[in-house]
Amino acid sequence: MKIAYLNADFYTMDMDNHIFKNGMMIVDDQKISYIGPSSADLLSDADQVVDLRGKWVLPGLVNVHSHILMTILRGNGDDMLLKPWLETKIWPIEAKFTTEIASVSAQLGMLEMLKSGTTTFSDMFNPNGIDADVVMEVIGETGMRGAFSYSIFSFGTEQEQKANLTGAERFSKTYKTYANGRLTAMVAPHSPYACTPEAIAESARIAKENDLMVHIHVSETDFEVLDIEKRYGVRPVEFLRRLGLFDQPTVMAHGVVLNDEERSILKQYDVRVAHNPISNLKLGSGIADVVSLLDKGIKVGIATDGVASNNNFDMFEETRTAALLQKGVYKDATKFTAQTALSLATRVGAEAIGMGYTGSLEAGKKADFLTIYPYDKAHLQPLSEAYSHLLYAASGRDVCDVYIDGKLIVKDGNCLTIDEEKVMAEVNRLHADLTR
Amino acid sequence: MKIAYLNADFYTMDMDNHIFKNGMMIVDDQKISYIGPSSADLLSDADQVVDLRGKWVLPGLVNVHSHILMTILRGNGDDMLLKPWLETKIWPIEAKFTTEIASVSAQLGMLEMLKSGTTTFSDMFNPNGIDADVVMEVIGETGMRGAFSYSIFSFGTEQEQKANLTGAERFSKTYKTYANGRLTAMVAPHSPYACTPEAIAESARIAKENDLMVHIHVSETDFEVLDIEKRYGVRPVEFLRRLGLFDQPTVMAHGVVLNDEERSILKQYDVRVAHNPISNLKLGSGIADVVSLLDKGIKVGIATDGVASNNNFDMFEETRTAALLQKGVYKDATKFTAQTALSLATRVGAEAIGMGYTGSLEAGKKADFLTIYPYDKAHLQPLSEAYSHLLYAASGRDVCDVYIDGKLIVKDGNCLTIDEEKVMAEVNRLHADLTR
Ligand SMILES: [Zn+2]
Ligand SMILES: [Zn+2]
Repeated sequence: MKIAYLNADFYTMDMDNHIFKNGMMIVDDQKISYIGPSSADLLSDADQVVDLRGKWVLPGLVNVHSHILMTILRGNGDDMLLKPWLETKIWPIEAKFTTEIASVSAQLGMLEMLKSGTTTFSDMFNPNGIDADVVMEVIGETGMRGAFSYSIFSFGTEQEQKANLTGAERFSKTYKTYANGRLTAMVAPHSPYACTPEAIAESARIAKENDLMVHIHVSETDFEVLDIEKRYGVRPVEFLRRLGLFDQPTVMAHGVVLNDEERSILKQYDVRVAHNPISNLKLGSGIADVVSLLDKGIKVGIATDGVASNNNFDMFEETRTAALLQKGVYKDATKFTAQTALSLATRVGAEAIGMGYTGSLEAGKKADFLTIYPYDKAHLQPLSEAYSHLLYAASGRDVCDVYIDGKLIVKDGNCLTIDEEKVMAEVNRLHADLTR
Repeated sequence: MKIAYLNADFYTMDMDNHIFKNGMMIVDDQKISYIGPSSADLLSDADQVVDLRGKWVLPGLVNVHSHILMTILRGNGDDMLLKPWLETKIWPIEAKFTTEIASVSAQLGMLEMLKSGTTTFSDMFNPNGIDADVVMEVIGETGMRGAFSYSIFSFGTEQEQKANLTGAERFSKTYKTYANGRLTAMVAPHSPYACTPEAIAESARIAKENDLMVHIHVSETDFEVLDIEKRYGVRPVEFLRRLGLFDQPTVMAHGVVLNDEERSILKQYDVRVAHNPISNLKLGSGIADVVSLLDKGIKVGIATDGVASNNNFDMFEETRTAALLQKGVYKDATKFTAQTALSLATRVGAEAIGMGYTGSLEAGKKADFLTIYPYDKAHLQPLSEAYSHLLYAASGRDVCDVYIDGKLIVKDGNCLTIDEEKVMAEVNRLHADLTR
């Protein structure tokens, strides 16, 4: 079934940054089969025509590091340092999590992501106390694309640690391909500080044996780097490299505290970085040197982290913040252009998490895209500067429609795959129980 | 006429940060006469009752430095350095401005401000080629509160410079009190680098003789500080102090490049700082040390600057960015709490621009407020953490109603005082002419 999308401006985010004003896109089942100028021939061959009424079309945004199961904790423990925040506010409440809380939390997070134009995400969840199979089913039903990763922690008794590893291995095998190929799993040792060397080495083994990517928090704070240096005599990147973790393609969240030598290691092993600018600011971790990562040729994606340290999933705002920070820190407005920023939030981010089949509007790629109707929005005028507005003025709240695999998931701002009212009511009921 | 507002959570932003959940506010004509717990006695005395259906109520936001006449230039010349940006993108196009362009641009800017919850603003405009009286009338009709300042520049011939000063003096006298006292003027020498010492001294005289505040750009970039030092042998703050500019209460925009000695001078003269975090990042100017300004006891307000360097007027986003930056730069999540940030965007900002009669919900203050309906917004759940969400998760797009002087200006997201469709159409028509 061929659907022709007409009467729209297509911001493809392909390598050459093609823009087709008043162009045409043909979606054949789940994939884009044509994008370019309007063509009467192709149009006559289409089974259905959708008039986009002058909307702007962008690839769906790619959020390369999140924690959707913590969405219920939004606003819990603001203005605190990372370590006491995790230890007194996050982990104790996560310990009380149930499958129901996890499922509803995931739905709330994905509802917010979808409505704000994110079509693909890569998440790391704490499996404690929850039935991950149930949660994975809930995630599958939303229609989103992404990777969901079962965190490996070296906490508790030896038996508990073993069960955690066994759980992670089973989860990874089971969900390597799920939900018509929209969902996958990564192997996710939480961080150098929350995992023993044995757990890291086991993670590397699981990833290798199952040919899966690795997802881990690394070099988030000065404290972490000092701590790992003290414990093991090397900095986190070298610690992980020696344990063989980087032998599989790895996405490393944060990378705030890195030196040049470490960036060379990351490049050598093709380690990708999930840049979480707002979470890094909010937790006082600092500002990652993204310009140096890009100069080195390292793939960087944009990410929100969980909303307990953000506190929203708006990838437009996140991407804008990423661009603004590099300009400000380098005191150079020419650094990190709108084009660079938007490509990291789409095509490059998708490549970073091994999903290069989405992230740009190109023939052969998955039909994952969002639309914005700019005509009634004061902050998106004048219309002729649309490309600039997409980075510097737009917000997730401006998103009108969202498609994944060619399927309409958000229509006129309403999510068709999640019962919005029910999810919000349940979140509030469960939050009241959880914090009582 | 007493109107009772019921069934809402009032975030007063008063000195003690009172919050009245399910409280009551009585507005008597233009002023708040009561705010606190619901009272049956007061309710029975009201002429009218408004059920706010569980909304969150916040004082209207105060944007202490903007350039609404440049709103039509949104997206013009991104990713450029300040000096070439002003000299090649902004000033040449401003030179082609007409009264019509200025008026429509002002309306677009105010439309965006109002819809995103800003009720009070302090603006600086370039009077070249426009009839400022016409523009002021347009501004008056929107119902907004604020100060509008006629920029003084030392450009052009001696005659042109004299005409500019004469124009500024006349404007200042004429608009000291305007639009039922909602609007006023400040005396606005553009900056130490765009004004001669004579023009600064004249500005000081005009401000003093008319008892008006001063509004000026100062210490925005390293380049400016070096330039002024080279020209005059002193840094910008001392340069202005010697010329007597600070003898009248002064709002200084930016203050990115300041040392401790300069902060002491600002404190001594009660100079207030308009902090423009996003503009400072976007133009590569840097990050102002707001924590040190506050520690010194200097009044700081939050501001967007013009949208050509922002590129939106969303004060929620601006305030969030201000908070996040200080945490990130200080590597301390406990710096600049949600309460501090929100107070600068409301009460403290209002005080900074001499309008302490607005900016918080307190008996005796002007009834300038906004409402947010959170129940249908995924990103504002769980509801019980509202105070955190107001800073860390909300956006100007979440604003439902806006009142100024007790009058409903924005209702359910629609501006009642500006013809939205007409303004947007005109902006696009004029922008096409301007850039042809
Ligand atoms: Zn994380
Ligand atoms: Zn300015």
